[in-house]
Amino acid sequence: MTPEQAGQALHPLDDALVLAPTGRAHEFSGRTTPAYWNMVGPYGGITAATLLQAVLQHPDRIGEPLSLTVNFAAAVGEGAFTVQATPVRTNRSSQHWSIVQLQAGSDGVAQVVSTATAITAARRTTWGVADTPAPAVPTPQQCTVLARDHFPVQWLRQYEMRPITGSIPTQWDGCGETSLSQLWVRDAQPRALDFASLAALADVFFPRVWLRRARHVPAGTVSMTVYFHAGGAELAATGAGHLLAQARAQDFRNGYFDQSAQLWNEAGLLLATSHQIVYYKE
Amino acid sequence: MTPEQAGQALHPLDDALVLAPTGRAHEFSGRTTPAYWNMVGPYGGITAATLLQAVLQHPDRIGEPLSLTVNFAAAVGEGAFTVQATPVRTNRSSQHWSIVQLQAGSDGVAQVVSTATAITAARRTTWGVADTPAPAVPTPQQCTVLARDHFPVQWLRQYEMRPITGSIPTQWDGCGETSLSQLWVRDAQPRALDFASLAALADVFFPRVWLRRARHVPAGTVSMTVYFHAGGAELAATGAGHLLAQARAQDFRNGYFDQSAQLWNEAGLLLATSHQIVYYKE
Repeated sequence: MTPEQAGQALHPLDDALVLAPTGRAHEFSGRTTPAYWNMVGPYGGITAATLLQAVLQHPDRIGEPLSLTVNFAAAVGEGAFTVQATPVRTNRSSQHWSIVQLQAGSDGVAQVVSTATAITAARRTTWGVADTPAPAVPTPQQCTVLARDHFPVQWLRQYEMRPITGSIPTQWDGCGETSLSQLWVRDAQPRALDFASLAALADVFFPRVWLRRARHVPAGTVSMTVYFHAGGAELAATGAGHLLAQARAQDFRNGYFDQSAQLWNEAGLLLATSHQIVYYKE
Repeated sequence: MTPEQAGQALHPLDDALVLAPTGRAHEFSGRTTPAYWNMVGPYGGITAATLLQAVLQHPDRIGEPLSLTVNFAAAVGEGAFTVQATPVRTNRSSQHWSIVQLQAGSDGVAQVVSTATAITAARRTTWGVADTPAPAVPTPQQCTVLARDHFPVQWLRQYEMRPITGSIPTQWDGCGETSLSQLWVRDAQPRALDFASLAALADVFFPRVWLRRARHVPAGTVSMTVYFHAGGAELAATGAGHLLAQARAQDFRNGYFDQSAQLWNEAGLLLATSHQIVYYKE
């Protein structure tokens, strides 16, 4: 019995991630949902999660997500799309995926709106060391929750955010000094963490250029990579707890900046590291 | 008149990057060269450069490389391969590429050995700020050049390396403490920097796990992303000069570690940032 059959509403994330096999090999159909709408298309994080979801529910998948790179080729329009997730090389303990998201243009012809590659792998216990401890920050309980009702776009309302440092500027006076943001974040409606929700959270930061300049210029992610350092069991153990999310840029030049991010759980385990290259207009 | 017609030998990098159109749309043929051979296949950096080269010489390309993600799906064997570089979405000022490298397996059937995505873009002059200054290090002239004759694999001999810190361990005693390496590096045979050679250089670091553990365990890059912060004119101005290359890991766990890297020219300009996820055996 599905939650819907039981009369329960699907979590907004699970609703956004609904993909149905089309009957063609490696192909699924999905659709955008209002809950994760951004200004001119869906939140990039939900697109990343959706493309990963196609891999996660593919019957031929082996292993768990290790890396994901999503290229945002065009704004996804409201409505239906298809995702093709093809295992192009399967090794003994790893699998390489090519993924493409297609949507009909105004002329009805399917066009590429996103591309991605992913690697899934069966991980074994080995020697390891955590060389990036979570920074010393106040606890979630010591940080104020941003009031979601005032968020200008829908997707932001799906997250409970508690800024620590580098919150979105309140004075757009051109006097920014740093690109570092730290915040506690989790799904606003509680949901146990998994690979799809973690992929979505990797894109949760507002554009670094807004913070660095204290100036609001048009910006949008062009490509995002997520490396998953934790396995499914560790994500499940994180449950619906808070994640400490940190992002900063290294360089802003001629219309593009980069962003490096880390996501730890409240126990201090580094769950994922992520990188983006982001367009800005001026 | 090509260098070969003039009786000059091609630079080893240009020789490795020779790609000929096959006559099929978006497809080129190439072959491995001994100069960039690693232990069980070509150096990952030369594979990255080769896949980017297919984009660079594609007649439909617009703009210059902005980002490149290469997934190493299998060891490339000695000999011929094909590269398919397809522009899957062309926007007004950016273009998204899907790339695949194929090679005949032992049964003669073509198999995927690498996949990649790339974005090329026409960049405009905008506001910018360099937020990652090059670290204060000795000049190249103050650093000792590693004697290349002793390098155990061919590709290393193609680079002039001057370690600053975090050189490859000389005592494999299990007593490593850090994963940070800094070195000056350039093509051993002088060659003006371009996007292909910069992509190759982004993979120049030995596995972080060797340094962190001072232990030699089998390791290999699974996926690498390069963000190009500089344009072609800035690379050309760098010429055959030294690059300051820095890499460190953030996390080692259950068979995989990540690596973040920066590459500056001698004038202190950040040319590229790069990230990898790397397999290690134990």
